[in-house]
Amino acid sequence: MSGGPSAGIKLSQEKLARAALTYLAEPADPALGALLAICEPAEVLAAIKADMLPGTGPGCGDTPASRAALERALGRWRVRLPGLPDAQGIAGACREDIRLIGPGDAEWPGALDQLGPARPYALWLCGNADLRFACSRSVSMVGSRAATGYGGHVAGEIAADLGERGWAIVSGGAYGIDAAAHRGALAAEAVTIAVLACGVDYPYPAGHADLFAAIAAHGLVISEWPPGRHPGRIRFLVRNRVIAALGCGTVIVEAGERSGALNTARHAANLGKPLMAVPGPVTSAQSAGCHRIIREWGASCVTRAADIIELLSPLSVPDALAPGGGPEPAYPPGTDPGSDPDSPSRDDLDADSARVLDALPARGGAGTSTIAVDAGVDLDTVLRCLGRLAGYGFIERCDRGWRLRRPSRR
Amino acid sequence: MSGGPSAGIKLSQEKLARAALTYLAEPADPALGALLAICEPAEVLAAIKADMLPGTGPGCGDTPASRAALERALGRWRVRLPGLPDAQGIAGACREDIRLIGPGDAEWPGALDQLGPARPYALWLCGNADLRFACSRSVSMVGSRAATGYGGHVAGEIAADLGERGWAIVSGGAYGIDAAAHRGALAAEAVTIAVLACGVDYPYPAGHADLFAAIAAHGLVISEWPPGRHPGRIRFLVRNRVIAALGCGTVIVEAGERSGALNTARHAANLGKPLMAVPGPVTSAQSAGCHRIIREWGASCVTRAADIIELLSPLSVPDALAPGGGPEPAYPPGTDPGSDPDSPSRDDLDADSARVLDALPARGGAGTSTIAVDAGVDLDTVLRCLGRLAGYGFIERCDRGWRLRRPSRR
Repeated sequence: MSGGPSAGIKLSQEKLARAALTYLAEPADPALGALLAICEPAEVLAAIKADMLPGTGPGCGDTPASRAALERALGRWRVRLPGLPDAQGIAGACREDIRLIGPGDAEWPGALDQLGPARPYALWLCGNADLRFACSRSVSMVGSRAATGYGGHVAGEIAADLGERGWAIVSGGAYGIDAAAHRGALAAEAVTIAVLACGVDYPYPAGHADLFAAIAAHGLVISEWPPGRHPGRIRFLVRNRVIAALGCGTVIVEAGERSGALNTARHAANLGKPLMAVPGPVTSAQSAGCHRIIREWGASCVTRAADIIELLSPLSVPDALAPGGGPEPAYPPGTDPGSDPDSPSRDDLDADSARVLDALPARGGAGTSTIAVDAGVDLDTVLRCLGRLAGYGFIERCDRGWRLRRPSRR
Repeated sequence: MSGGPSAGIKLSQEKLARAALTYLAEPADPALGALLAICEPAEVLAAIKADMLPGTGPGCGDTPASRAALERALGRWRVRLPGLPDAQGIAGACREDIRLIGPGDAEWPGALDQLGPARPYALWLCGNADLRFACSRSVSMVGSRAATGYGGHVAGEIAADLGERGWAIVSGGAYGIDAAAHRGALAAEAVTIAVLACGVDYPYPAGHADLFAAIAAHGLVISEWPPGRHPGRIRFLVRNRVIAALGCGTVIVEAGERSGALNTARHAANLGKPLMAVPGPVTSAQSAGCHRIIREWGASCVTRAADIIELLSPLSVPDALAPGGGPEPAYPPGTDPGSDPDSPSRDDLDADSARVLDALPARGGAGTSTIAVDAGVDLDTVLRCLGRLAGYGFIERCDRGWRLRRPSRR
């Protein structure tokens, strides 16, 4: 799973433990966040390996309910133990062009600590820029994958202008606005940061392999997931909080009414960071989400780089980013952007079922143990969830196990 | 000047006096507003005719300074006395299809009283709708004369949607957004109100004669100026406060950075009425003003009729329109939309010079007495202002008197 030559760098015990946790747990796992608030990463890793909860200190398993939740989490993480590389393998994953940073490292951006218990356990980085320095003057720019020519043009122009004025871009790795923003920054020879929902060595979408290489050459490709890990629907949503945290503010360039970009927008607003949106023709569905967050959440209407810089300049030093500032966003009923971007009925699923559904292939098929490892859920839970998902019509049995059922057949 | 057959309607003494004042004074003349706050219209008219200020009551000429200002105003109004129709002529101006309303009349919209001393002295109406009733559910929709295809389309669609839901449109009579808004309302067979900066029988622009006829058939063409009066640059700006006052809220559909529509927007904000703007492509100069008032003045970003109705519904009964509500608009230095829409250096002119400049023809030429009557300024002032304007390079002498100097020659 490390995928690299064994010429790795020697890692500290804490760094090795944090790296291992990125293999075993999904990011923003509340149980792991709670444990890391009171235990050292190495203690937590040892506890997972020993199948025994660490201590019984305050806040950690001190009520039967939370203790039960932690024990379930332990089972979840242990499922992935067989696939965990050993210390040498983890160090080997840190190749010449991939490095690992954690809290306390010089390159760790303080802005990530605003995420509280949902702070990344560690970050895998690939590229030539310094993350902390880049994030001291940075704009998160995200938007629709299905961008219009207008949206792509505007994202590229604004990103290039920001880059020329010394601001770094933070975005995802998707087609559409994300790619246009990176390309604009690269055209200005500026630093741009792609935050992936998969391993930094896993080019997803495959058509962006060259783009990611260009980004790494001038900026950074980063991820909370270890090298080799593939992306997933839920991973994109979890990843969005990191995009929001790494920018001094977030700009939405184009977003449909249910775009995943609005999930990033919500994270930015929740972090008390300036939220901005670029307007467009009211006749364009791809601008409807932008107009809605301007009208209903109080996002600032920005039309060019100068507008963005004017709003962010007092905030360009991370230490000045006091959490809890900014206007309180309001989410009218049914408009919460945290809901699933494409298929609202998925919202009704519990967390485990959502994880299992996310692990299922659309073609071929997967066996239950493969699904358990992939979803990071124990086998009993997988079986229970598979039954529920089949009952809802999301999935179906096939010769090779389970697979997604096509929407038209639901 | 009445221009109509003498088969007029018998008017009350107050109505006759108010009608006469619309001939003698420009609307929103502060001196006349002050006098009407303490004297009956007929008393004021008699005073003008007698060239003697009425009484010396409190607030009216009770200091040497304000008394001097009133005396100058008297001179200004008296200049137009020779052109004032007699009682029969004024009554004759009220033809079958033109009527006059004033404060206290059943059709007088209470919203106009929010204008305080700048309240119209009276309104000339042409059309089949009831003004007060129409304004109880009304949206002022204005925008750029040089509208794009996008802006015209959106204005028409939104106006038609509003009309179908029982909301009246209030706008000016210009090409571009004004016309598109009226046409949209007419297409929905809804009431639409054109507020002109000239007599209701004076089709300006001439290409809109048919449009005004259609508006009068289903709605109203209204004006503060008497029949026969021609439009002028300053008149458009003075007129804008009436457009803003007659709507429950104001929507700007397209506006360049210095569009006159932003003057109407400012009036709406000053009146504490909801101010809204329709966004557009950030690449369009005709949407730049809309984006700016969303960003800087807190105008609401609206994209369709439903957004507007949602914002205005609690306010659709005029009595609920408490003045002074709404957010305080901020005008950063140099962005005050009250400044002249095309030529900023005109802002530096005093009121009399601006009036005189407005009365000057671009071609041919006008003599000083003609200019005095047209501007409503006494002859001494005209001569002083002509000298100043010539010095600034705004105007030049010609065979037939004075005329505007072409900008390229300044």
